[in-house]
Amino acid sequence: MSTDQAPRADGRKDGRKDDELRPVRITRGFQKHPAGSVLVEFGDTKVLCAASAAEGVPRWRKGTGLGWLTAEYAMLPSATNTRNDRESVKGRVGGRTHEISRLIGRSLRACIDLAALGENTIALDCDVLQADGGTRTAAITGAYVALADAVTYLGAHGRLADPKPLSCQVAAVSVGVVDGRVRLDLPYEEDSRAEVDTNVVATESGTLIEVQGTGEGATFTRRTLDAMLDSALGGIRRLAELQVAALAEPYPGELP
Amino acid sequence: MSTDQAPRADGRKDGRKDDELRPVRITRGFQKHPAGSVLVEFGDTKVLCAASAAEGVPRWRKGTGLGWLTAEYAMLPSATNTRNDRESVKGRVGGRTHEISRLIGRSLRACIDLAALGENTIALDCDVLQADGGTRTAAITGAYVALADAVTYLGAHGRLADPKPLSCQVAAVSVGVVDGRVRLDLPYEEDSRAEVDTNVVATESGTLIEVQGTGEGATFTRRTLDAMLDSALGGIRRLAELQVAALAEPYPGELP
Amino acid sequence: MSTDQAPRADGRKDGRKDDELRPVRITRGFQKHPAGSVLVEFGDTKVLCAASAAEGVPRWRKGTGLGWLTAEYAMLPSATNTRNDRESVKGRVGGRTHEISRLIGRSLRACIDLAALGENTIALDCDVLQADGGTRTAAITGAYVALADAVTYLGAHGRLADPKPLSCQVAAVSVGVVDGRVRLDLPYEEDSRAEVDTNVVATESGTLIEVQGTGEGATFTRRTLDAMLDSALGGIRRLAELQVAALAEPYPGELP
Amino acid sequence: MSTDQAPRADGRKDGRKDDELRPVRITRGFQKHPAGSVLVEFGDTKVLCAASAAEGVPRWRKGTGLGWLTAEYAMLPSATNTRNDRESVKGRVGGRTHEISRLIGRSLRACIDLAALGENTIALDCDVLQADGGTRTAAITGAYVALADAVTYLGAHGRLADPKPLSCQVAAVSVGVVDGRVRLDLPYEEDSRAEVDTNVVATESGTLIEVQGTGEGATFTRRTLDAMLDSALGGIRRLAELQVAALAEPYPGELP
Amino acid sequence: MSTDQAPRADGRKDGRKDDELRPVRITRGFQKHPAGSVLVEFGDTKVLCAASAAEGVPRWRKGTGLGWLTAEYAMLPSATNTRNDRESVKGRVGGRTHEISRLIGRSLRACIDLAALGENTIALDCDVLQADGGTRTAAITGAYVALADAVTYLGAHGRLADPKPLSCQVAAVSVGVVDGRVRLDLPYEEDSRAEVDTNVVATESGTLIEVQGTGEGATFTRRTLDAMLDSALGGIRRLAELQVAALAEPYPGELP
Amino acid sequence: MSTDQAPRADGRKDGRKDDELRPVRITRGFQKHPAGSVLVEFGDTKVLCAASAAEGVPRWRKGTGLGWLTAEYAMLPSATNTRNDRESVKGRVGGRTHEISRLIGRSLRACIDLAALGENTIALDCDVLQADGGTRTAAITGAYVALADAVTYLGAHGRLADPKPLSCQVAAVSVGVVDGRVRLDLPYEEDSRAEVDTNVVATESGTLIEVQGTGEGATFTRRTLDAMLDSALGGIRRLAELQVAALAEPYPGELP
Repeated sequence: MSTDQAPRADGRKDGRKDDELRPVRITRGFQKHPAGSVLVEFGDTKVLCAASAAEGVPRWRKGTGLGWLTAEYAMLPSATNTRNDRESVKGRVGGRTHEISRLIGRSLRACIDLAALGENTIALDCDVLQADGGTRTAAITGAYVALADAVTYLGAHGRLADPKPLSCQVAAVSVGVVDGRVRLDLPYEEDSRAEVDTNVVATESGTLIEVQGTGEGATFTRRTLDAMLDSALGGIRRLAELQVAALAEPYPGELP
Repeated sequence: MSTDQAPRADGRKDGRKDDELRPVRITRGFQKHPAGSVLVEFGDTKVLCAASAAEGVPRWRKGTGLGWLTAEYAMLPSATNTRNDRESVKGRVGGRTHEISRLIGRSLRACIDLAALGENTIALDCDVLQADGGTRTAAITGAYVALADAVTYLGAHGRLADPKPLSCQVAAVSVGVVDGRVRLDLPYEEDSRAEVDTNVVATESGTLIEVQGTGEGATFTRRTLDAMLDSALGGIRRLAELQVAALAEPYPGELP
Repeated sequence: MSTDQAPRADGRKDGRKDDELRPVRITRGFQKHPAGSVLVEFGDTKVLCAASAAEGVPRWRKGTGLGWLTAEYAMLPSATNTRNDRESVKGRVGGRTHEISRLIGRSLRACIDLAALGENTIALDCDVLQADGGTRTAAITGAYVALADAVTYLGAHGRLADPKPLSCQVAAVSVGVVDGRVRLDLPYEEDSRAEVDTNVVATESGTLIEVQGTGEGATFTRRTLDAMLDSALGGIRRLAELQVAALAEPYPGELP
Repeated sequence: MSTDQAPRADGRKDGRKDDELRPVRITRGFQKHPAGSVLVEFGDTKVLCAASAAEGVPRWRKGTGLGWLTAEYAMLPSATNTRNDRESVKGRVGGRTHEISRLIGRSLRACIDLAALGENTIALDCDVLQADGGTRTAAITGAYVALADAVTYLGAHGRLADPKPLSCQVAAVSVGVVDGRVRLDLPYEEDSRAEVDTNVVATESGTLIEVQGTGEGATFTRRTLDAMLDSALGGIRRLAELQVAALAEPYPGELP
Repeated sequence: MSTDQAPRADGRKDGRKDDELRPVRITRGFQKHPAGSVLVEFGDTKVLCAASAAEGVPRWRKGTGLGWLTAEYAMLPSATNTRNDRESVKGRVGGRTHEISRLIGRSLRACIDLAALGENTIALDCDVLQADGGTRTAAITGAYVALADAVTYLGAHGRLADPKPLSCQVAAVSVGVVDGRVRLDLPYEEDSRAEVDTNVVATESGTLIEVQGTGEGATFTRRTLDAMLDSALGGIRRLAELQVAALAEPYPGELP
Repeated sequence: MSTDQAPRADGRKDGRKDDELRPVRITRGFQKHPAGSVLVEFGDTKVLCAASAAEGVPRWRKGTGLGWLTAEYAMLPSATNTRNDRESVKGRVGGRTHEISRLIGRSLRACIDLAALGENTIALDCDVLQADGGTRTAAITGAYVALADAVTYLGAHGRLADPKPLSCQVAAVSVGVVDGRVRLDLPYEEDSRAEVDTNVVATESGTLIEVQGTGEGATFTRRTLDAMLDSALGGIRRLAELQVAALAEPYPGELP
């Protein structure tokens, strides 16, 4: 069944317009130890994004002068509607976790000049405290802010090879077809019954970093894909503004 | 850096046009045990796709009357340029493997009516015998043919709930920006230096099942995305024709 | 070397008296999904304690009419001074994690009548968001409050076999010998150089549930043990009062 | 329920007095390969304690001039009443095993001067051949004797930085409340129904190294704790005498 | 290089003749919990063989009326010349361990009528306490005696389907080419430099159960194989007599 | 029951004589990346044998001037009659896999002079594409040819310490007692009901490398063993001729 978008009258449970984001909050300095620590909230989805900076790089990269950026995504057992088992106890990281960790790392590496970073490694840890749809896109959006703080921290300590390693902003949002309509930033209630589900990562100017459109048990036309991209890029523009606003405040920790 | 496509004079090493597929071969009946077994070749990329049919479904699905389809992707250690370590010996399946296995399963589930399948499970095993770029898209394209054979086998043994569980064909191809040009079906030599890399899964009529566009260390415009989709959908149309031609021959094993 | 306590003039870095707790905050309803969710803070140590209630018990307990309570402790990678590796990625739960998980479970089972609980399982997840010493004692103290909320939730939904499964309160605190003095509720700075380190779990009336006194690289006299127990039981009395105060507010979620 | 000790008439199944140890045997030189090898028996509990000495220390300790001591505890599958599964086959070390291994290592490090040991590593392996309660306390008591032999061995080979690395003796015993009475050195039959279970590690002079008192499903008063400590320290004094007697014999292997 | 046996003058370090066994001791009733428990010694090689009997069989065998026999082999870390790491800590059972466990199980299943055993499972645990070559052959030889005791135990408790499940005796010995001579029952010193190494499992009447001849880094003629088999079968005849002698004593535990 | 061979009239299902091999095919150059890549077929058993050459040796061998050869055996999930689960997904390599991998490595090391190889490592990967009995013997026979090609490749690139590292040919075949008759090269149908199963590895001149004779649930006489060895050595002689014929063609890839 093709799910080409058809106009329908029914609205969203939370009263939003189809192309409206959930309320977004970005809280910097949530933890005291990492160089950057941001609690990002997309409605009831809450993700703690920490950027830890360490001197040195993995062995295969030593002596290149280039830095490295890595990411790990995880969910607290208590974050979901029904408790989910702990991956450390199961003894293996699941496929979905792996996939999202790789997506976050790839997305954030698109905005950082690893030569400018110098031989430092930044580890981005995105731990979902509460899940209500869109955890990976919230994670990317928050991780960018944590990364910006970590870069500020490294710069203030004279550890950057070049003062401006960040070349653009990175934000992400989900969009899908629900009830036959293209809708932005799906909460779990919509996500779980979406016919098509797309995650878009882009810069503040709307150039793309990653597009992942999936129709599990359904297919979708290029017209639908276009409509989803329009909606997503509008949302990303607003998220980028919120990142700018959040970063307008001074660095939340002590600097030399 | 944005990689919007710009015209350049330089051609492809293997002499292909930008929107030309590599030579594709589909060999059915490669193994004797599975209900469907297909060796698919996209140039030097060779993937063995087996569809094993088993009665019954996983526990969480029992009694629903629905079947199940699952997929696993793997690479022989000897498939790659430099030998890659065996994941069974490492004791864990890597992130990339997980991700591709999930993609194949999702893609093929888009074309099968699990109610018509009845309480049977089809396991698709896609083992890369030789890798030269595009292993996941070759795997999906070959897995569809193996799946079609497995469905024929089940039908001939009277094990389907409904005679036509396949609602469409599924094929996939990679497309990327290399040397500033949009190119179809990238071999390893191009893939490894592509600025943007996109995998598209679609039906024979060009409706989309999955779009994964990635700019590692680069970004890309919507115009580039559009050009990549045009090229990919052209390739998928030709792959679907090759699937039809391959399936025109009778079932390669014995049937009652 | 025996570390029997000797009077010295030097005070604590944070200005506290030897037998004074750090500022303690207990925030109920931190997450929306679990039946009980509490953020507990002992100074800069912050632990998220969630109590998830599920119908049924593990197989070995089925049909006994008794409920079950289990606990898992973990640390976010970003919780510590230097980032700690994720146990899910390492593929195994470390000895320290195991030990603390078992301690929390044992401690909380001391206050609950599992027959009154009925055939329900309560999973206590204690995830350290920020570590500054005393994470296991903060976890136990917070877990009690989350457990009390989960019991309220189960009672309101008519799922308890008996209305009052909690027979006492449970709280815990660390105490140690630092700079030759017995000190209560050690932050990391003191804990890391303590000669003796003791964790005490007790009820609001001062009866003991668990005493774990350890002299790594040192020994201690019974007089020192007595002085540590005096200090710890004083601290636990105050923690129990804070638990009562926190639970005086109505249940933070919706009840029927 | 508080289990404050109350006098009762009923005696112990094996005819012992409440504060009496089981028959203890210490056999040195049980194996020929390790520098120290001791079979220790507390009644029917039999633990083989081996101290293997190796040159060098773990990487994180290199160049410090300090030695290292580590311990591992395990049980043969055939050691228990009902066969217990092998942890190597299960692929992970359980929580209880981890916890006891850590306890043994910590306890024995309390009596050794790691600077005097020089850059050597001593691995203590405590393998339970037969279990009848008190395996961890027997293990610690036997491990001390094996350690003393390993130190003698190292000294005779001129590999110690200082001739006397052992500063005290270490022994351990269990004590618990059974049938309302404080009883020493519990066999399995008593241990399995004890209301309170305490393990005490101490030196020959009665200064404490570790106290672990646990009331699973029960609580206990400080008076009970005091009575348990009195009993345990009496037992440890006698165990220390037995260690001295065992070590009065010459080293059981060949020395230069 | 072929290692066809050639006569040489040099003798064995321990003074034995080429076809002489080391001193063999078989001690029944070594542990009190398993139905059969035997310490077997071939010179300095000491293996504890326990046969635990449990009601029921693995799931795949249920309802067949047949029993099952399984075996696991392991080594204490302290058993070898240099301490070997614990497989439970490494988290996986090594190839050699797997291979020997399978050999022991296969060998002992050759002498037992699983229908006569009834739906019982016997687990043979062979734990090497001290290793000096020939651990697997000592294990098989001792496991037979433990198995015989377990069968006596089951018979006395009326749990056998038929009173005589054992159809023959099973014993094993190693033989190899060392210094150009065929030698029986190799200790570690000979085993480590043997050009050919063969393990033979056979019955008391000399019919074969398993022959494993290996020339690592060398080859060997059929004449050498024949000479090795002659020597091994002579040794197995003597081992079978020692088993009979050991089993002439009454069952070492209590029987109804 | 002893299975001494007795003459019977019944023939083999596939019409072969008792001492006849199945049709054998050896296809060199099956893959383009490894230095040697051979598809070997013994009837319906198909094994892909790849020999990958890498500079350097494992750490424990560095600086010795000796090379190393290692082998890994695995089965595709789709290779067997009923799909077998993937060991990478199960997270551990099974005992049978381990055992065969070790056998292949040992067997091939018997024919190579590791000093002549120089400090290179050859990894032999034997992946079963289709299983119909005798996979390990086919693997060894094919691996020898792949190894010969890898040696040619190394020699042509000037990477050998000595030009002739191979001292003999290695081939292997199975032989067993089926229906009371000694039969060569058992397909699955015979293997699954064989009373005795023997694998023999030998050189082209009939000297032995490995003999593994197993009677699961049965025993066998030395006369039967002799008959099996006669049959196997005849088969190996013919396999060696087929190896020579296959290697008479030029190296299937490009050489300098």
